[in-house]
Amino acid sequence: MRARVEVMLKAGVLDPQGEAVRHALGGLGFEGVGAVRQGKLIELDLTATDAGDARAEVVKMCEALLVNTVIERYRIEIVED
Amino acid sequence: MRARVEVMLKAGVLDPQGEAVRHALGGLGFEGVGAVRQGKLIELDLTATDAGDARAEVVKMCEALLVNTVIERYRIEIVED
Repeated sequence: MRARVEVMLKAGVLDPQGEAVRHALGGLGFEGVGAVRQGKLIELDLTATDAGDARAEVVKMCEALLVNTVIERYRIEIVED
Repeated sequence: MRARVEVMLKAGVLDPQGEAVRHALGGLGFEGVGAVRQGKLIELDLTATDAGDARAEVVKMCEALLVNTVIERYRIEIVED
């Protein structure tokens, strides 16, 4: 089983990485780009066989290590393969 | 219109960030975690009104700036809102 965790800065938190990308795209001549936000995508291979158990475990991982919940939000997707 | 771009290292390319996460999770007592891969998720607000045009433009942005196509692969999702 695999888990995909999307981690993005919460709305209202300054995103200097995204701002740098936006500025660079403008410098390259790309018009029509508004706000840009950059986050992380973490893919984990898990040995768990139950999707519910896997999700519960990944929530614990997010809260303990993967996400700074003060400034970041996350979304977990469990992929059964 | 919004675009979401997932950027991950290609299979076979060493992923030290992912490896560091895997090691840290093990150190925190999380069992049952195999390979971990960490990539980028970039969200762009676009003024384009046609989904096809938006996708073509984002492909150009990926090839020009957002992705190192030698070692990274990408996937674009266009979200109409």
